[in-house]
Amino acid sequence: MPDQLADLLHELAIANRICGYEGVIDAFGHVSLRHPSDPNRYFLSRSRSPEIVEPADLLEFNLDSEPIKPPTLPMYSERVIHGEIYKARPDVMAVCHHHSPDMLPYCITGEKLIPVYHLGAVMGDHVPMWDQRDGFGDTNLLVRKPEEGASLARTLGKHNLVLMRRHGATVVGSNLRELVFRTIYACRNAEYQTRAKAVGHVSGLSPGEIEHAGKIHHQPNTVARAWEYWVMRLDKRGGMPPRLAKSRSVRVASGKRKTKPSRKR
Amino acid sequence: MPDQLADLLHELAIANRICGYEGVIDAFGHVSLRHPSDPNRYFLSRSRSPEIVEPADLLEFNLDSEPIKPPTLPMYSERVIHGEIYKARPDVMAVCHHHSPDMLPYCITGEKLIPVYHLGAVMGDHVPMWDQRDGFGDTNLLVRKPEEGASLARTLGKHNLVLMRRHGATVVGSNLRELVFRTIYACRNAEYQTRAKAVGHVSGLSPGEIEHAGKIHHQPNTVARAWEYWVMRLDKRGGMPPRLAKSRSVRVASGKRKTKPSRKR
Amino acid sequence: MPDQLADLLHELAIANRICGYEGVIDAFGHVSLRHPSDPNRYFLSRSRSPEIVEPADLLEFNLDSEPIKPPTLPMYSERVIHGEIYKARPDVMAVCHHHSPDMLPYCITGEKLIPVYHLGAVMGDHVPMWDQRDGFGDTNLLVRKPEEGASLARTLGKHNLVLMRRHGATVVGSNLRELVFRTIYACRNAEYQTRAKAVGHVSGLSPGEIEHAGKIHHQPNTVARAWEYWVMRLDKRGGMPPRLAKSRSVRVASGKRKTKPSRKR
Amino acid sequence: MPDQLADLLHELAIANRICGYEGVIDAFGHVSLRHPSDPNRYFLSRSRSPEIVEPADLLEFNLDSEPIKPPTLPMYSERVIHGEIYKARPDVMAVCHHHSPDMLPYCITGEKLIPVYHLGAVMGDHVPMWDQRDGFGDTNLLVRKPEEGASLARTLGKHNLVLMRRHGATVVGSNLRELVFRTIYACRNAEYQTRAKAVGHVSGLSPGEIEHAGKIHHQPNTVARAWEYWVMRLDKRGGMPPRLAKSRSVRVASGKRKTKPSRKR
Repeated sequence: MPDQLADLLHELAIANRICGYEGVIDAFGHVSLRHPSDPNRYFLSRSRSPEIVEPADLLEFNLDSEPIKPPTLPMYSERVIHGEIYKARPDVMAVCHHHSPDMLPYCITGEKLIPVYHLGAVMGDHVPMWDQRDGFGDTNLLVRKPEEGASLARTLGKHNLVLMRRHGATVVGSNLRELVFRTIYACRNAEYQTRAKAVGHVSGLSPGEIEHAGKIHHQPNTVARAWEYWVMRLDKRGGMPPRLAKSRSVRVASGKRKTKPSRKR
Repeated sequence: MPDQLADLLHELAIANRICGYEGVIDAFGHVSLRHPSDPNRYFLSRSRSPEIVEPADLLEFNLDSEPIKPPTLPMYSERVIHGEIYKARPDVMAVCHHHSPDMLPYCITGEKLIPVYHLGAVMGDHVPMWDQRDGFGDTNLLVRKPEEGASLARTLGKHNLVLMRRHGATVVGSNLRELVFRTIYACRNAEYQTRAKAVGHVSGLSPGEIEHAGKIHHQPNTVARAWEYWVMRLDKRGGMPPRLAKSRSVRVASGKRKTKPSRKR
Repeated sequence: MPDQLADLLHELAIANRICGYEGVIDAFGHVSLRHPSDPNRYFLSRSRSPEIVEPADLLEFNLDSEPIKPPTLPMYSERVIHGEIYKARPDVMAVCHHHSPDMLPYCITGEKLIPVYHLGAVMGDHVPMWDQRDGFGDTNLLVRKPEEGASLARTLGKHNLVLMRRHGATVVGSNLRELVFRTIYACRNAEYQTRAKAVGHVSGLSPGEIEHAGKIHHQPNTVARAWEYWVMRLDKRGGMPPRLAKSRSVRVASGKRKTKPSRKR
Repeated sequence: MPDQLADLLHELAIANRICGYEGVIDAFGHVSLRHPSDPNRYFLSRSRSPEIVEPADLLEFNLDSEPIKPPTLPMYSERVIHGEIYKARPDVMAVCHHHSPDMLPYCITGEKLIPVYHLGAVMGDHVPMWDQRDGFGDTNLLVRKPEEGASLARTLGKHNLVLMRRHGATVVGSNLRELVFRTIYACRNAEYQTRAKAVGHVSGLSPGEIEHAGKIHHQPNTVARAWEYWVMRLDKRGGMPPRLAKSRSVRVASGKRKTKPSRKR
């Protein structure tokens, strides 16, 4: 189990970096993973750009987004996005929040984002838009209060992706690789929708096509092939995160072992 | 002959990688080559992103897209695109299927792709559009059944390039380097057509210009100059595929020698 | 103090290079820093592309933009932009002048640049446009005369950013890292405003949102996180400037010590 | 003199590569230089992508674009572009022909390219458009016949840049570095003109501004600063061409020495 956890944290660091290297996330944005054996916890980096995150940066939080161990370094101010979605959506195992240049035009104009090609169907048949003003008036547009995160989770509802007015997007997945796949191909879909609008009339897949193509990522070797590709690109550019040193790996593992039998939350 | 085949497979791996590095193909898409001495077979990678393909990944298929040797790793689900086109077009020696960002706007809107500059004439005078719904209703838009591949091949007809509604494009060539040349310059043409539309009124080359410029790639040193350029760029970024190890090279060769005289298909 | 100054000059070289590597500045443009202990002086590179600037290139100027020590190599012809803004704005500690591709469309058309997403609020609620023709008629559009710089500073007024008709932009900050943050995110905002216009109707943040989000960069770890990210990217591409050699470091420091007590300006 | 010529050829190889690395030229396009001491000759690479050109590839041609020494490798088919312009324009010392993605929209639509920002004035006050059909009807759009090159040179007239319908652009300079400067900043101007059109109404510099800003590149250190920047970027990406080996350097030099006193043309 300790080794499995170390593998998971390494994979979470890789997921963060892929979102950075593939142009979805710049200095801001984050990717989290629900604890595989304790659904009331999740892992998220300390406040750091995803392109640099390494396993040693990953902290454990409860679903109120409080750190299990008080951290010595700053935390992301918007971590309630993750905690509140994990609360509302037991099926969600991984969450990505970002401000991709592909998504922003839709966040700014309110134009509807629709699946326009087969891989875009990974977004699902409807992409809701969350407007923070509705419940909270004028803010700095960050999602910092639990009630803001809970409101966002309500707008997300049963969908896979929620746009956030003048801010960005939040994506969910039933596992980490599916999350990265959905995050990246939703951005590609947005990009192609914008490009297509410059060329002619844009319409979406038919409902039946969305239903069928929305399961493409469940086909054998689809997500795995894309993951291998992104990891190869990351590695080629010297971007692979280090693995946890043994001592730290043990500390995380024992921390985990300790919390499971001896604490309740 | 064994060495010639090893050279060919190395070249096919390079062609896959060029399409990746030059931005035509991302995680998905594929490039195949008809067997040079057995027109009823073709080579295609196992299910893997073209940017990573190496000679050892290349499998041999018959024109029903069944592997000659049962593979131990997953295959592309859309290989019938290749097999059915090789069946229908004896003149075609190489096929590329992709989802280039340059082509998608035309696949989404149905706007006509036309040659707008001299190198774009390599597409030919007409680019047909295949709509999978016509014969098959709502699908996930992948081309997995032989009859889907055959339908696509019929729409391709005698042309060089077929757009696939809400999906991508498939390009053919009379040899591998011509295929890569046509694939890349058709994408450039699409890109410039889109850019031109943002600036003013777009029209295409005259029929006479298409006829003349459509043979530019037959001029001495035209394809060779571009190929040298793409290989240099690939090499500079550390992207050249390894060559087959001797043993494997022999295995392929002997596999080939074996299958030719002793099996029928 | 000598070491502190050496650190500062190293940081100024880094700031120049970040603006180059992140695509804000190409061969032309510059970043300056007011002297931390002498408000009547500032540091600016000799005439050189920011992506190459190193600490040894940094010269000291008075606010009339005259070099403290006569330089042996050419100086930027537009350094009055910096001197005149430092004169007019005692709160400004750092200035960046650039011709970013994101800003040029607004400089060319005169369309208003407005904050369209949370990080864009770092521009403030109003971005003025300076038209050199108003005071100076037909020029080559460079800002070379003190009165041109003073005019630009007047149009900048109390704002953070001023667009320059058919030329570029000038940005100010209360420290160097804030300046780089504002420079880059103002460009992102411009890019997203342009992209959004291609998709639908564009409007800006509400006045209350601009007020709140305009302070995001004062939040703990916001600028620091972005700075770490940009430095990491610079470093990964081999772009970190060298540090001053000891001898030069001393020379700058002693030059500084000398000029402070013994000279008047 | 031999060493001077070797330096010049090295610089010409660098100019070719800069145009490749900065995105102006891909596999096709070329940069030439008039012989510094024999105005009836010019240097141009054998048929090869500019990004790969090295001094050993450079051949010497007379103004009828015939090679002085019969080459063993293929030559560019469009070299009459260079020869005919050198004939018509004694002030021109360097020529670049390219198909930049920034220029193509203007070549395709016929929309007028105008200086929209200060550095764009390097194009001059008028950019003519050459339409090969006018004199030659339907062609493959390549400029291969002397009379085609002469026609292009007539349309260029006294200007700095000529657009070629559905093909590309040809740029001239009074020296090699000025040529590269004009080539690159004309492309930037075209890019910004296109971007600006997406944002609002586009108009050009005033005639007085074009006159003044059109001399910016004559300012001290302007072209030199940009050249240092491009060379640094080339070098950082491992793109610097090798220098001629001694023997070859001598061969060129002696070839030259021989041709000057002993041959007439």
